[in-house]
Formats: sequence, structure tokens, C-alpha cells
Amino acid sequence: MIAAALFSLAFISSAAASCGRGLTFIDPFQFDAEGHIPIPSFSYGTTTGPLNWHNLNTTAYFLCGNGTHQSPILINTTSAQVPPGSVKLNVPNARNASFENLGTNVEIVVNGTLQAANSTWKLSQFHFHTPSEHRLDLGHYEAEMHFVFAAADGSTKVAVLGFFIQVASNESTPLLETIFAHLGSIQTPGTTTQLPTIDFSSFQASANKMAYFQYTGSLTTPPCTEGVAWFLATTPIPLKIDTYNVLKGTTKTNNRYTQNLLGQPNLLEVAKVNL
Amino acid sequence: MIAAALFSLAFISSAAASCGRGLTFIDPFQFDAEGHIPIPSFSYGTTTGPLNWHNLNTTAYFLCGNGTHQSPILINTTSAQVPPGSVKLNVPNARNASFENLGTNVEIVVNGTLQAANSTWKLSQFHFHTPSEHRLDLGHYEAEMHFVFAAADGSTKVAVLGFFIQVASNESTPLLETIFAHLGSIQTPGTTTQLPTIDFSSFQASANKMAYFQYTGSLTTPPCTEGVAWFLATTPIPLKIDTYNVLKGTTKTNNRYTQNLLGQPNLLEVAKVNL
Repeated sequence: MIAAALFSLAFISSAAASCGRGLTFIDPFQFDAEGHIPIPSFSYGTTTGPLNWHNLNTTAYFLCGNGTHQSPILINTTSAQVPPGSVKLNVPNARNASFENLGTNVEIVVNGTLQAANSTWKLSQFHFHTPSEHRLDLGHYEAEMHFVFAAADGSTKVAVLGFFIQVASNESTPLLETIFAHLGSIQTPGTTTQLPTIDFSSFQASANKMAYFQYTGSLTTPPCTEGVAWFLATTPIPLKIDTYNVLKGTTKTNNRYTQNLLGQPNLLEVAKVNL
Repeated sequence: MIAAALFSLAFISSAAASCGRGLTFIDPFQFDAEGHIPIPSFSYGTTTGPLNWHNLNTTAYFLCGNGTHQSPILINTTSAQVPPGSVKLNVPNARNASFENLGTNVEIVVNGTLQAANSTWKLSQFHFHTPSEHRLDLGHYEAEMHFVFAAADGSTKVAVLGFFIQVASNESTPLLETIFAHLGSIQTPGTTTQLPTIDFSSFQASANKMAYFQYTGSLTTPPCTEGVAWFLATTPIPLKIDTYNVLKGTTKTNNRYTQNLLGQPNLLEVAKVNL
């Protein structure tokens, strides 16, 4: 069963073509022929977890253990930024967007665009990590949201727009409250539900006024593809504790460990000495 | 400077004798000859972080990369437990306890005893990790508190009494609120302050009614010594968000990644294949 799933995922990951809602390698969790969402073979556990992803598929996931521009990384307040107004997210009100439990994550599949770094990008999906994957001034936040985009020019370029999420007592982000109210419908990995109309206007108006840390890194999940244009909001967004607990209770811990400095040897290459 | 610190720490760690407040290898952060707290050479960053601790001192930290009974591990609700009443913590009211910022952590040095597993243990210190180090049913908590004990019989055995800490809007743990109110005095690594009289009675009355997950693992920091008797409370304790943010802002992210199943090869040994 596991072997079959692994073979299936490897096949999907190695496919170069894009399909309906984005490039397969930025969203390898396409519906299978029977209309179910395949659960990935990788995990956030032990031998199938982040330290060993490169051994789950030595070809397709090679970069996870060998790449030298891997994400997530340590960010600090003096890291390179693009100023407010440089990033323009535009997500039309979404009707019946698909909200999917991938086991390792929950994602919302919705159309939209991003204009950033003199390029236009097409939204594939967005999803969440608990705790945060990137760390700001060495510390994590409680969660991190990733909007994943394919290049609008049809090339294989990928961009990710990320937001730190900070737990709060008395404030939250209405977009997230609206979406996470439906987590109860997708508690089982592999299940999906359709969301009611979601209004992104308030969130994106706020997002489009933010400054963003900018660097070129990788996907934080297998196949750990590099050349990803990262835009990471300098301002965290709030989430009520109770809602955060429902998210965390659904996807559990799903953050990759901090990678080495950009351009330096992969941390696993560094670590293997004297083992 | 770094080399000197490394040598110093290696020397301290390899010393077999105990001193005033506990065995050196469960508390390698003793005051140096000049009365300062040495900052450890290991970190939670990249090349000096958890994946590479074994290479910072290939002798003293060997087990970090090669041990097969390493902590923290995945715990689940069916893991082995000892029932309520099995663990008896006794910490007398502490006057002028030392509260120290080690850079990688903050710890409180206080006397006390633990009776558990038919043994008596002497408290060395207690400290905190954000996010939690152990994971319950795959998910982390926002923090974890570790009371570290040496065997009262003078042997080199070590026990750790651990508590998951969960952020909350409207409740907290008075013991932690009292202590963390003094974090502002030790914001600089290497500094220490004396706490006013701390009353542990309410906390320990509660702790002594809890059930505990029990297993034999390791220290979660170098030198990653094994044979540590872990008692991990099955009930998380609450901490107000604002207080949690001050703790996290002081020590930043300081949790070690999840280790392999007990008795299985060290995850770094597993990962080095195909690198």
C-alpha cells in the first residue's frame, strides 16, 4: 500500500506538464483517477519525515537532501525587503472553492493573481504550516500561510507569498476564521469540502500595503524544487487561539526544519561528517 | 573566541564529578571561574544547530548524532503511562533562586526532590523550550517545561519531569507568571537575577495528581546523554499569550527536532544514505 502510494506520487511529481489548477510540482496532491485526493508518502514524523525525504524518492526528492538553496531559512529584520506596494495580490470572490485535507496539510484551491518582481503569477492554492516554517530573528510564529503561484508566462517558475500567523486573545483575521470554520468537515485525510463564497478583498487590501522579505529558495515540501521566489510578509497576521487549536489539531506539526544559509551546503551534507 | 568556548564546554561536559547544584552533564552551564554564566557553543540555528551538534564536539557530543535512544520523541495517548500518584515533586519555597539566561534557554536553579519509579531524585534546575520538544499525537504544544534531576544515591542517573505548556486567553499557571515577570531582568544572554520567594505548593499539588508518560531517553541538549528517565505530564498546563510571547522573545526557538523511535538507528544515520 505504502509502496504503491510512493510509486504513484513519484510518477505525479516527475510529470513535467501542468494541469488544471497549477503545475504538478507545486501541487502534487491532484485528484487521482477515482476523484480522491492522494495522501502523500512523506510525513512530518521520523523516517518518512523531513530529515529523510530525499530517501523516499532518491530521484524526485534529491534536492531535499542535496539542494543548496532550500527553504525555510532564518529571516531577520535586516533581511532584504521589497517595500509596501511591491506585491499585489488579487483573488476574486471565490464560490465553492475546494478545501482539502491532504493529511500533511489543508489547502484551499482558488483562482487569483500576484504581481510581484516585475512578473505576473497565477494562484494555484494556499495552505498552512504549524508552527511557522520560516523564523524571524531566530523565533518561530505559531503558524504560517503560503499562497503558491505558477508563472503566468507558462514557464516552470514558482512564487510563494507567505504570512506569519500569530495567536491572539482578542483579534483574528476574518478570512481565516471564515475558512477554518469548515475544518470540521475535513477532519479525515483525503476528504474535501466546498467553501461558501469567500471574500478576499479585506485581506488583500491589507496584504497589499505590507512590506515583504524577498529571497529565492525552494518549496518546503518534496520535491523541494529550487528557484522559488519567496515573498514573506514582514507583518504577522493574528489568529484566535481557539481557531489555531482547531487548525493544529487537524494537520498537527507540519513544519520543515530550518535550512542552511542560501548557497551553503545542505545541512544534511554538513551533518553527515562523523556519522 | 568560539574555539575557546568550545574547549571550555567540552572540558566541563567531560568532567564526571558533580558540583554544588547537580551533575555537570545535566547542567553544563555552571558559572565559570569569573562568576559568569558561559554561553554554550551549540545553538538552535544552522551549522551549530541540532542537526550538527555531534560535529561541534565529536567526542563529548557523539550521542547527539549516533545515539539510538534519543529525545524528544513522538508520544501518543496510548504510550506507556504511570498513573496519578506515581510521581511526587517536592520543591520547598525558594528564596533568592537564581534565574539565568543561558542564551539557548532560561533556567531557574532551585532545590527540591522527586520521588518516582522507586527512586529519589534531587532537583538541579528547570527550564523551558519553545515550541515543545515532545509531540503528543504528532502535534507540538507552544512550550515545554523540564525539571532536571540527579539521582539522590550519587549515581549518574538523571530524570526529567516534563510539562507541555499550552497558550491560553484567560488562564495561566501562577508559578510561571511569577517567574516570567522577571524575564525583563535577564534579556541579555549570560545574565542572571535573583527571584523573590517562590511558592511551589499549588503547582506541585496539581502536578502530583497527574498521570505521566514514562520512557527512558536522553537529554535534549548536548551532550545528549542517554539513560534519562522521562516523566512527561499527560495534562498540559496553561500560559497566557502575552507571557508566552515574552518567553519566546527571550529564548527564541529552542526545540530539538523529533528523534527516531527508541532503539532504532539515529535519524541522522538513516538520513546519511544517498547524501
